[in-house]
Amino acid sequence: MERRSGDEAPTRIAAVMATVRARIAGRSLASGERLPSVRAQARASGVSVSTVVEAYERLAAEGAIRSRPGSGFFVCGPSAPLSLAAIGPKLDRAVDPLWISRQSLEAGADVLKPGCGWLPATWMFEAGLRKALRALARADATQLADYGTPLGLPSLRAVLARRLQSHGVEASADQILLADSGTQAIDLVFRFLLEPGNVVLVDDPCYFNFHALLKAHRVRAVGVPYTPQGPDLAAFAAALGEHRPRLYVTNSAIHNPTGAVLSPLVAHRVLKLAEAHDLTIVEDDIFADFEEAPAPRLSAFDGLQRVVHIGSFSKTLSASVRCGFVAVRPDWVEGLVDLKIATSFGGGRLAAEILALALTDGGYRRHMETVRARLAAAREEVVRRLAPLGIEPWLRPQAGMFLWCRLPEGVDAAALAQRCLAERVVLAPGNAFSLARNAAGFLRFNVAQSLDPRVFEALGRALRG
Amino acid sequence: MERRSGDEAPTRIAAVMATVRARIAGRSLASGERLPSVRAQARASGVSVSTVVEAYERLAAEGAIRSRPGSGFFVCGPSAPLSLAAIGPKLDRAVDPLWISRQSLEAGADVLKPGCGWLPATWMFEAGLRKALRALARADATQLADYGTPLGLPSLRAVLARRLQSHGVEASADQILLADSGTQAIDLVFRFLLEPGNVVLVDDPCYFNFHALLKAHRVRAVGVPYTPQGPDLAAFAAALGEHRPRLYVTNSAIHNPTGAVLSPLVAHRVLKLAEAHDLTIVEDDIFADFEEAPAPRLSAFDGLQRVVHIGSFSKTLSASVRCGFVAVRPDWVEGLVDLKIATSFGGGRLAAEILALALTDGGYRRHMETVRARLAAAREEVVRRLAPLGIEPWLRPQAGMFLWCRLPEGVDAAALAQRCLAERVVLAPGNAFSLARNAAGFLRFNVAQSLDPRVFEALGRALRG
Repeated sequence: MERRSGDEAPTRIAAVMATVRARIAGRSLASGERLPSVRAQARASGVSVSTVVEAYERLAAEGAIRSRPGSGFFVCGPSAPLSLAAIGPKLDRAVDPLWISRQSLEAGADVLKPGCGWLPATWMFEAGLRKALRALARADATQLADYGTPLGLPSLRAVLARRLQSHGVEASADQILLADSGTQAIDLVFRFLLEPGNVVLVDDPCYFNFHALLKAHRVRAVGVPYTPQGPDLAAFAAALGEHRPRLYVTNSAIHNPTGAVLSPLVAHRVLKLAEAHDLTIVEDDIFADFEEAPAPRLSAFDGLQRVVHIGSFSKTLSASVRCGFVAVRPDWVEGLVDLKIATSFGGGRLAAEILALALTDGGYRRHMETVRARLAAAREEVVRRLAPLGIEPWLRPQAGMFLWCRLPEGVDAAALAQRCLAERVVLAPGNAFSLARNAAGFLRFNVAQSLDPRVFEALGRALRG
Repeated sequence: MERRSGDEAPTRIAAVMATVRARIAGRSLASGERLPSVRAQARASGVSVSTVVEAYERLAAEGAIRSRPGSGFFVCGPSAPLSLAAIGPKLDRAVDPLWISRQSLEAGADVLKPGCGWLPATWMFEAGLRKALRALARADATQLADYGTPLGLPSLRAVLARRLQSHGVEASADQILLADSGTQAIDLVFRFLLEPGNVVLVDDPCYFNFHALLKAHRVRAVGVPYTPQGPDLAAFAAALGEHRPRLYVTNSAIHNPTGAVLSPLVAHRVLKLAEAHDLTIVEDDIFADFEEAPAPRLSAFDGLQRVVHIGSFSKTLSASVRCGFVAVRPDWVEGLVDLKIATSFGGGRLAAEILALALTDGGYRRHMETVRARLAAAREEVVRRLAPLGIEPWLRPQAGMFLWCRLPEGVDAAALAQRCLAERVVLAPGNAFSLARNAAGFLRFNVAQSLDPRVFEALGRALRG
């Protein structure tokens, strides 16, 4: 590839420098480690050798790397602590996933959170939780004070196996491993399957914490555009060929942030492509209980051969009682258990006991029927209230709490989010979900958190101002 | 270094092959990555170049690596899942830390666990837990169902700050971050501070799960002999010079497995050495509440400048209600919070609420007084019962549940452990705690789990058989 014209070169040099800086910050280049050869870097970045030489020289001048004549360029030590914020492009805080999570998690009662990813506490299974707590106040000492077993509470795993079966996922209780949350279940699987520098496919848009979690694993995320039927198959196939990813992580059933549902055809094609490229898929299915009708699931089609199934109850039952799970092929269970013990020892038994009681409480089914009905009504109302503001849903979800909405032409979601934050309204701007940052004109609304008129008043003022 | 005589060469070749295999299994050599040059490997292994050439050729023949003429040897893909068991020397299961943990965690009521690291459930703060559960059954919906804040429940962090102060550790509530367990708090700190290939100092012997956790982080552990006053200072200084470790992880107050207490002099010297070599120290202080009198703490002497303080209540209050914490210098809090959100999102609020109630319950102090008295009596009794078997404590601990004992001359702890396991008695053989594997003649006894006469009967038969 020949040298670019003079006016383009500077941006290309800066791009190569940014890439190297990000890899150092993300530790995919450790201190003392040799950088890719100038030629290899030029090929990888699609720039000329002289552009890379110039970029390396400038980084050496900055003291980020040093040259050892005859043996190449090396990362300078000593190493600083891992900074997720320092990895990748420096983000406007308004679209920084970690910052949005913190805003939502730290928000006081006086803050409205249409951008957050969970239901109001009053929508959760409060009665069942109180009942479970009263029951556990009378439980055995072992239930109150002992460690959980390595796989996690057998009675809860048995319940989960039955629930999975009702979603068409065949998994015995011995293939189910409890974790302290759905996020930790994914983190455990990533630790098990990924090594620094691997490539992982994500949907664009996708749940924004996937971006942060992948950074923490020092792997490279590659985005695949998401359609109302699932990932764009042509782009998915192209990414497999080009990047040889180790994993694809996605939400099934109800996609976050779009609310889309995988079509059987797309699910089948994705699995065939995964098979052809020996790709493992992590299916994050934490919204299962919001479904009106069971949607196609990769783990159901695949029978947990190359699909790892993740679940939790933080969205339906309680986010205060932390417990998630992973359902996985039998031959991976031992390795995951070893990693779980090494990194968290015995899991939280009490949380599992509470969930086992709450899930087997007849009230839970009725509770979720009510929640689904409330969500359906809320989706309608929020769509109705957004219309006059010129905010339109990208699609009308069949279920769930999310509405992925397009803003009026020319409106920047990040700027809007900053104006609304000044009025103590936390929004979720589209680019926080988009690796390609091509969703500047979108917002994700949580309909259950958007029923307060002040949300729309603040939006209206922000759109006008 | 010249070529070894023919009869030694084969074992040296095998040793180099084992080293490379372990690095591949541990991902410190990723698939596709270039192996160290033959010369570098020869220097590193202290063997001749021809020995390395032979080892690399055999590994290539096995298909573990491949040769690219002119550019060296490379690890073959595709990468297998991370296997902690495959990292490092293949251990006899009887001294495999992960296996011992699993035996203890999975043990049914009919199994005796003198080797396990926690108290019987009936020794924990049952009354306080029941009271807290009853109170929480009447709590707000937010306490029952909402995520915790990023740092964790403010009321619990305030309690912890006061407790730390009573141990001489000055930390504001804003320097305290809650995690789902003490182990996870350490894991979070390791993620923040370590990168693959780093060196970490551990005590020899030390808590065996440190070995597994360090493997999970793909870093190299280097052992420093532990004395009744703390780490051997000469060995500690030598290790700092030779290995340039990033971290030192240790237990203060009551050392696991020895029950030793750091002397003020050793604590001071360790901190001076750490300062001279820019070493960070992770002080795991989970046994604090077992102390009869506050022992010297590195975090107290250091004021949390280069010492990170870890705590939890799994050993005193409940292992079922999982919650640990880390107290850290102020400028590291933000980075740790980002990592915590990325890897576990909101922490378990309910567990924190339960602990905050139980810790502020006047009954907890009285409970721990009783536990300390019971442990003191149990230490005396177990020492008395072990004497006739020729099993002697290495030292008489001032506090805590552990007795680190020397077996009669020539008795192998691992073999003894296997014989006892056949009688459903789980022991903790010394080499599980020893990186250098030089504790084959030691066992760690948990006195609270050793009061059943069948423990000593089984030991007696195993010693005779």
